[in-house]
Parts: sequence; structure tokens; C-alpha cells
Amino acid sequence: MEKSVLLSAIQKLFDRYQSLHEGVPAQYIPELAKVDPNQFAIAVVDCDGNCFSVGDENTSFTFQSTSKPFVYALALEQNGAEYVHTKVGVEPTGEVFNSIIELEEKQHRPFNPMINSGAIATAALIRGASPVDRLQCLRKFFQELTNQTAEINIDVFNSEKETAHRNRAIAHLMKHFSVMDSDIDETLDLYFQQCSINVTTLGLAAAAATLANKGIHPLTKKKIIENKNVQRTLSLMFTCGMYDSAGEWAFNVGIPAKSGVSGALFAVVPDQFGVAVYSPRIDSHGHSIRGQKVISDLAKEFNLHIFG
Amino acid sequence: MEKSVLLSAIQKLFDRYQSLHEGVPAQYIPELAKVDPNQFAIAVVDCDGNCFSVGDENTSFTFQSTSKPFVYALALEQNGAEYVHTKVGVEPTGEVFNSIIELEEKQHRPFNPMINSGAIATAALIRGASPVDRLQCLRKFFQELTNQTAEINIDVFNSEKETAHRNRAIAHLMKHFSVMDSDIDETLDLYFQQCSINVTTLGLAAAAATLANKGIHPLTKKKIIENKNVQRTLSLMFTCGMYDSAGEWAFNVGIPAKSGVSGALFAVVPDQFGVAVYSPRIDSHGHSIRGQKVISDLAKEFNLHIFG
Amino acid sequence: MEKSVLLSAIQKLFDRYQSLHEGVPAQYIPELAKVDPNQFAIAVVDCDGNCFSVGDENTSFTFQSTSKPFVYALALEQNGAEYVHTKVGVEPTGEVFNSIIELEEKQHRPFNPMINSGAIATAALIRGASPVDRLQCLRKFFQELTNQTAEINIDVFNSEKETAHRNRAIAHLMKHFSVMDSDIDETLDLYFQQCSINVTTLGLAAAAATLANKGIHPLTKKKIIENKNVQRTLSLMFTCGMYDSAGEWAFNVGIPAKSGVSGALFAVVPDQFGVAVYSPRIDSHGHSIRGQKVISDLAKEFNLHIFG
Amino acid sequence: MEKSVLLSAIQKLFDRYQSLHEGVPAQYIPELAKVDPNQFAIAVVDCDGNCFSVGDENTSFTFQSTSKPFVYALALEQNGAEYVHTKVGVEPTGEVFNSIIELEEKQHRPFNPMINSGAIATAALIRGASPVDRLQCLRKFFQELTNQTAEINIDVFNSEKETAHRNRAIAHLMKHFSVMDSDIDETLDLYFQQCSINVTTLGLAAAAATLANKGIHPLTKKKIIENKNVQRTLSLMFTCGMYDSAGEWAFNVGIPAKSGVSGALFAVVPDQFGVAVYSPRIDSHGHSIRGQKVISDLAKEFNLHIFG
Repeated sequence: MEKSVLLSAIQKLFDRYQSLHEGVPAQYIPELAKVDPNQFAIAVVDCDGNCFSVGDENTSFTFQSTSKPFVYALALEQNGAEYVHTKVGVEPTGEVFNSIIELEEKQHRPFNPMINSGAIATAALIRGASPVDRLQCLRKFFQELTNQTAEINIDVFNSEKETAHRNRAIAHLMKHFSVMDSDIDETLDLYFQQCSINVTTLGLAAAAATLANKGIHPLTKKKIIENKNVQRTLSLMFTCGMYDSAGEWAFNVGIPAKSGVSGALFAVVPDQFGVAVYSPRIDSHGHSIRGQKVISDLAKEFNLHIFG
Repeated sequence: MEKSVLLSAIQKLFDRYQSLHEGVPAQYIPELAKVDPNQFAIAVVDCDGNCFSVGDENTSFTFQSTSKPFVYALALEQNGAEYVHTKVGVEPTGEVFNSIIELEEKQHRPFNPMINSGAIATAALIRGASPVDRLQCLRKFFQELTNQTAEINIDVFNSEKETAHRNRAIAHLMKHFSVMDSDIDETLDLYFQQCSINVTTLGLAAAAATLANKGIHPLTKKKIIENKNVQRTLSLMFTCGMYDSAGEWAFNVGIPAKSGVSGALFAVVPDQFGVAVYSPRIDSHGHSIRGQKVISDLAKEFNLHIFG
Repeated sequence: MEKSVLLSAIQKLFDRYQSLHEGVPAQYIPELAKVDPNQFAIAVVDCDGNCFSVGDENTSFTFQSTSKPFVYALALEQNGAEYVHTKVGVEPTGEVFNSIIELEEKQHRPFNPMINSGAIATAALIRGASPVDRLQCLRKFFQELTNQTAEINIDVFNSEKETAHRNRAIAHLMKHFSVMDSDIDETLDLYFQQCSINVTTLGLAAAAATLANKGIHPLTKKKIIENKNVQRTLSLMFTCGMYDSAGEWAFNVGIPAKSGVSGALFAVVPDQFGVAVYSPRIDSHGHSIRGQKVISDLAKEFNLHIFG
Repeated sequence: MEKSVLLSAIQKLFDRYQSLHEGVPAQYIPELAKVDPNQFAIAVVDCDGNCFSVGDENTSFTFQSTSKPFVYALALEQNGAEYVHTKVGVEPTGEVFNSIIELEEKQHRPFNPMINSGAIATAALIRGASPVDRLQCLRKFFQELTNQTAEINIDVFNSEKETAHRNRAIAHLMKHFSVMDSDIDETLDLYFQQCSINVTTLGLAAAAATLANKGIHPLTKKKIIENKNVQRTLSLMFTCGMYDSAGEWAFNVGIPAKSGVSGALFAVVPDQFGVAVYSPRIDSHGHSIRGQKVISDLAKEFNLHIFG
């Protein structure tokens, strides 16, 4: 796609939705509830390394669930797919019904790495001699992906840690069913830390572009993720990335995407570009409202649906 | 892909799996239980209209659930997507758990058109002034897709009709929840008829190739399905086509596919070709065992995964 | 209990609730929706054969689900408990969740004879050489229990038959899972007929009193139900008689009871009396609102709770 | 019932089942797995204060879940039924299905105080200024009920505490859904302590007899539980005391009972006596195998079924 076409497209989308003030920032994590709800930024990084962004492009936000596909990719790199998938499945959950405990009825394994249980099980697979080592390893990976410093937002981390009864319940259940080997508190800490990594829209778009570019960072040209693991990550983003509206998204928009309750949403157009939107007003599914509209419009305008 | 490469590939796959005798033909429909279990055929039709086939290429079998994506496409053509999706959803079901009643917990709408409830709801949308008209309309569509006569196998039809308590239960539930307007007996008859249409592997591959070729039949060059409806059909085959192993299939194989209990299995490689396998020995999920292996190997060998 | 005390008690309860006009008659069966919503009658028959009644005591209504315990008792008499309970369980359903299909997850057997699936499975056990015979046999049993003619209300029967998609779904599922041997249409007809038997409040109270009096009708002195089968029937009324509010009823009121959507509700105080209320305004669970209040107040006033 | 009759009955039952060696002691709590599996004792205390026991009558075991009805009674005494039942329901759970999270689908409240979630929610209601106070209060209540010292078995307590991932998960979920106000660790400690109180068969039978005797201890003659709270406790034991086989038990045996994984099982025959059995070999539901047989036979022999 022509650079100028893409740039003008995201500028137009920014203008189209700037005045849309539906939804509110996530309320259940106190630190997230405090942000300026009207923040809005769109960024694109293409496979040639071109970067475009509009809006609050210097504003940092935390990864939240947009970290999940990347940590899954890292777990694959470190452990191999075979081992990873003894701990977490590859099936969409279908129904909200399962969302309380998020474990498969028979194996008691999490359905997939894109839901909380699966992401916690995935975080448990990150290697390192100690909690500090594991966090260092994780941060280094995010530094390479985002080309940014990947600082932990300590206030958000603490805020999540204190309000995480559902995640603790999930971890204890996985322990009960022997699907998690690691220490619960250490694993949850690492999981909350991955969720609390700071990034800008451009950083998130660069990470997305790495997935678009077969695992090679489009700016640094470094090979960060193996081809096969990129494929696995995109597959699961496509079928499971948008939780219980994943089917609707795959059907209507048709490109792999992942959202986070901070209002971050990114999508990957293989061999073309990564796109990220930041807008903290979310809907009842936890997805950024402007984020979904921007990416959905972009997909329609440029016929990006994988079965287009 | 080179013609000769493809031909030699399917010949090699045929040889590889000819002696594999795992599984048994479907037992719950008496007529299906009677077939020679060792029948085996592979056919490919590419977007240029080249046809290749090996094995029992002249053997007919019934469409069974491989009819579902095509009837869904027909329903879209006749009613528009908006109306169709007031009657049936686009979400994978995830768990076997739901398989008894197959209706969404809140709306009581079938999850998607690839499961029985959704396919019955879809059959209910086929237009015509009378049951005879509707069957004619359906058969004409299958004649165009397969380039064959689309005869109803009356023994299979009768066999299905008599053993269909679960499907009747589903239809009555949809009637109870007011998600089906049409007459139950007429609709189920049409559904059993679509399942009982005869086809050869080449006919099924031609129908598949029509989906690969943006709705234009590669042999007759007739435009049968609108682009947008091809996209919708492939999307749902991708996320929901293989029932409760759909997630596994999308993850590992990565191309839209649909299986039927007759032992038919077809897959679509957009802009390249359609492939069909017939081998009546099925696994516990109801998928042809040799069919899955052939298509899975083909996808790996030629890197066909959509996120490849 | 003194006769005069009981008579004055039901008169007082009648006066207390006569002006209560909450709720509406059942709407989903058209014939039931037509009744005068303000009808109200209370009747008691004690184990000595004393009969008391107040209000619309000559008004007939249909048994509906209040027939279930009696048909269960008849099935026990004819088949023995061992055989009956190969077809239907003895467990409360707990959650509304199960109410759509009403079958146990593993055995696919209905949970108990007090819910629709279980009552259909129970009706399927009534013996006779033909549908006419079976109906005669059933009516004879109800004639003995009520000391009335047990006429079928043909309009209600037809009304139920036409609107019974959920019950038909349940019957087909039971057929699918091989837990029902008999013909679906014949069995459902018998079930709708048992629901459509006419009775007055006094007739229902006499039937209830037969359960209170160890199976001996307090007026005719005829032994109609074996002791052990009375025990079984009362046990299931106690734990399952009030559907998903059965736990609440057992906890708060503490006497075996059964309600029907016609607005009938009866309860059994072993060794003392049977009580029946007719008032067609029902709540969202399908229980007569005035019926529940009358019986609950009566139980409190006279300390009738079985663990009192 | 004649004293001599009862004594000879339990002696006969002891002889009948002494050689029955089916089942094994609970394995998931290491301390419980260590006991001599062949221990066996039966004790009865009647409402007149007569005490009978046979077998290993001096052997102590831990209350485990047999503590639940008593702690529920204490919570009622301290808080009143209205408040208690804002935190925990009164419905049987019906299906094993719910047993993982044990919370009602809508209110997210535990179903009843006899399952783990409900017992934890109930323990959370025990009053006291500090954890030590609350434990003192609880132990004092058990001392009065058992007429024994109610020592905590510290090894069992530690063993339970370490293996309690499922209970921790439940507690975190209740915290997540705001149905538990108290501190998780303190509440679970108290819950594990109540489970770890030592008692002999005679002590447990005396506690049971207090429920049989309207809350008055038959030996000390002290009024320990209000009449209305005895009624509530017996009601819930009857409908929910035996977990997912509660329906079967209520139907077949017909007297309120409660079992614990230590192999303890007690039942209450209102106005007559309390009976306790200790035999650590349990079945897959967690109930003492000999315990169930003894109490079931006793109920049949003496016609104790409440609807007998």
C-alpha cells in the first residue's frame, strides 16, 4: 500500500472518530479509571519500516491484555509449541459462560493463551533462574518489540495486584488441577508486570508490525520471533483475540487483533503493516470503542479481510 | 502452483494413506454404515479449471454436512446477510457441552450455520413457493456448484429422516424460542435432502474451487456467489467448520474446511484451488480420518496456512 | 387438629388474601389465559374424612403439573420403583440452567418426575394395551383420588398440544438418548391429557389427603397407593415439587407440595390433612401467588414444618 | 424406642459390616490418608440422654464437613437467618457440574452452607474481635455440643491448609463477586480449624442428639440452639447434606444427615436420637461406605424415613 494513502487514511479515521465519546475507561482497576478518557492516538508501522501516527502519540499507556500474544510468542520461543500446548489449549471459548473459571471441562486446561487463565499459564512458562531474571527476560523481549524502554508502571502494577481476586481464583484452580507448576504469587506478579509495561501507540504498532513482518522488526531488522511461532500467534489472535466477540470480529473484520482494558487495540495485516489505536473508553466486552471502529473501517476500506 | 506439482502431490498423499484403515463409517445413519469402508479418493480443482483426481473418483457419496457452507451461501444470496444473521450467529461453539441443544444461552439462536441447529435454521431460509420449489432451487444451486446432477439419494434421505430425533428436538426448541418461523417437518425434510445429495470427489472439489475463485465456477466460469458472501462463507468455515476441533484445525492447518459424516472433507485455498477427499472411515468427531491427514499434509507441504 | 380450628383458619386465610391481585394467569397456554384471574378457593380434607372449603369451591380447573405426583404414584404401582427409576431420577435440578433440556448430563435421564421431562417419561410408563386403555386407566386412578369424574377439558388439551414445542423437543431428546421407549405422539397426548383433567379444589384436596393418609382415601376408605409409594411420592414432592424454588420451599415451609400453571397448588401434612388452593394468578416460577401465601401461612401458624 | 432394642440394633449393624473393607480413606489430605482404614465405631445418643456405642469408641477423628451444619447453626444464632442468607443460599446444587466453583450463576452466592463455598461463607460470619476470639467462640460451641474438649488436630489443620487450592480459589471468587467481606486467609484458617476439631463417635452422636432434641443437649440439658435454627439446620441437612447424592439419600433414607471425608457420618432422628458412625473408607462422593450402610439399614429397620 502507498505510504501516503495509508497516512491520509489514518488521519481521516482520526478525524472521523475524535468526537466520539461513548464508553468509559475500565473502572475495576483504580489506576486505569483515572486516565483522561478522551485520549486518542492511531499509529501504523509498515513492513518497510515506515511509521505514521496521529493524535496523542507521545502518551504512554499500559499493555494490559495486548501483551498476551507477545508473551505467548516468547513462551513458544523458549519452550517449543509442543510443551506450551500441554499447558494451554488453542480453542475459542465461545461462551461468556465459561469466563468465570475459564478452564476446559475435561482437561481443566485454559482454553487458549488470549484469555486470563491461559495468559497466566503462559506467563508461568517464561524462563529464568529467579523472578527478577524472568522479568528481565520479559522486558528485554518487549524492548525489542516496541523499540522502547518497556518500563513497568508501578502504580498500575500495584493497583492490579490488589484487585485481582478473580485471577488469583483462576491460578489456585489451575494449581488444584495440576495444570500450573510454578509458584502462584510469583507467576501472578509476572503476569501483572507484563500487563503494566508502558508503551506508546507507535511502540505497540511496531510490535504488531513485527508479527506482520514474519517476526523481523521492521525498524531494527532483527529477527525476534520464528516464522512458525508468528503463524501460531496470529492464528490464536484471529480466533480468540477478541474474547467472546472473537467470532463476530473474525467474521466482520477478518484480521488478527488483540485488545486491552487500558484502551489499547492492535491488529496485524500480514506482509503489510501493524496498526495500533489507543483510546481508553471501552465497551462492555472490554474493547476500546474507537479502536474497534478505526480498525474495522480500515479493514473495510482497504479490503484487508483475510478471506477478502 | 504448477499443475504437475499438485498432481504428483495428491498421488503421493493417496499412496501414503491408502493402507490406513483406522476408524469406521458413521454408524448412526444405517445407510451410511453399509458403504465399503476402504473407498478413497482425492480430487483437486484449481482456479484455472484444471481438474485432478486419484482413487475411487467415480464413486458417489452424499454431501452430509459438507452441504452446510453452500446452503449458507445460498441463503445469503437469497436473503442478505443482515436477515440471515437475525436467525443464526457467527460464533464458534467452543465446547462439546453445548452440542446437545446447540443454542446460544441468551438469544437461543444457533451459534453458527456450520452446526446442525444453524444449518436447519439456514435451510429454513431457502426461498420457494412450496417444498418442491425450495428443493428445486437448492438442487439447481448444487448442480451449478458441482457441475453434476445433484440427485437425492433416497435411501440415505429416508434413513436420516427416521433416525433424526436429535435434529427434531433442536427444531422444536428453535420453534419454542421463536427463532424458526417455517414448518418443522418441511424444513427438516429439506435439510435431510441437502444432506442426501449425491456427489463425486471431483464434484465436491469443483464446488470448493468456486469458493476459492471468488464465487466464479472455474469450469463454467459462471458467477454463482457474490464476493462478499464467499468471504462470509470462508470465514465461518475457518472458525466453525470442524466443530469442536475447529480451533485445533485453524491453528494447525489454517485453511477453511468442512467435513461430513459420509467421509467427505473439503478445503479451500483462496485464489488457488479447492480440494476434496472421500474416505468413509471417521473419527469420534465425525471427520474423515484419511481426509484430515491428506489436507493437513498438503497444507504443510505447500505452506498453505493463511498466516503462513 | 380440631375441625373448627382448621375451618376458621382457612376462612381467615381466604379473607387475608382475597384482595391480593398480584400476578397474571399463565399466558403461554391460550386456554389458561382466558380464565377469570380473581377466582380463589381453598379446600382441606383431613384424614378422618372431614371436608372444608371456602371461595369458588364449585369452579373446576385443570390439574396441570399437580397431576405429576399422582401419575408418578400410579407408575410406581404398575411398574415398581426399581423399573421406574431406570427411566427417571430422584435428584432436584438445582438450577434453572438445566430447565431447557432437563436431562442429567451423564445418563441423559430426566432428573426427577416433577419436572416436565420426568413427567413425560413417567407418563410413558402407564400401562395399557392401547392409548385409549392407558387414558382409561389414568382417568380411573384420578376418579378414585378426587372422588370426581375426572373429565378431560378438551379445549385445554388441544391448546397444550398445539403449543408444546418445548415438550416435543424434550421427548425427541429422550428418544435420541434411548431413555424413552414409547411412541412420542401417544405419550405426549397422554401427558397433555393428564394435565387437562378437570378437578375442583375439594377434589384436589381429597387426592392430597390420600397421600396424607398413607394411600387410603379418607372418604371412600379405599387403599389406592401402597405405603412405600406414598413415601416415595412425598419425598420427591418435598425435594423437587416446587421446581427451582424447591429448596426455598423445603427450607421455609417444610411440607411436600406441588403446583400447576392453572393456579392449582396442593400440600400434604402426613397423618393430618391435604390442602388445596386454586387461584390462577401465578408468579414467574409458575406457582399460584395466593396459593403459596395461604399454604405458607398455614404451615407457620400450625407449626407444620416437618422439622418443626 | 426401647433402649435395649436400639443397643442391640447397633451391635447387629456393627457385626454386619465389620468385615466390609470397600473404599479407602481420603487421599487428598495427606494426614487423613495415614489413618488405620479399618477403624469402625457406631454411637447413639437419645433424647433422654442414653448413650450407646460399639467398636473403636475411644478413637478420635476430625469433624471435617460434619462440622458444617453446626457452624451454620452457630452463624444463625449470632447473626440471625435473614443476614446469614444474604451470604449463602438454601438450594441443593443438583449437579456435580457446579462443584468446581459452587456459586449460583446469577447472584454468585454459594448454593447452601453444606458445600465448601457455603461453609466458607458461613465461617466468615462467626463473630469475634480477632481470629483468636473467633476460634475460641467456635471451639466453645463445639465443646458444648460434643461434651468434649474440641481440640484442634494441628497436623490435619496444617495438611488441609497446604492442599487447599480449590478452597482458596472459591474464597477468591467470592471476594471477586463481593459475597465475602472478611479476610481470605483468616477465614480459611478458621474453616480449616473447624474441620480439624477432634471428636469421638459418641461426641458426634451427642452433637447430633442436640439437633434431635430441639437444641437442648440431652446430657447437660443446656439449650444450645434455638428451635427455629434447629429446624433450619435439619432442613438443609436433609436437602443438601449429602452433596450430589443428597436427592438419592432424601428419597431412600429420608433422615437429615451429614458426612465428612474423615469417614464421619451422622444423622438426626427428630425427637428420638442422634447417631454417628466413624469408618474412614469412603466412596467416590466422599461419604463413609460403612457409615451409609449402617444408617440406611437403621432407617429401614425402624421405619425412620420422615415420610414413612
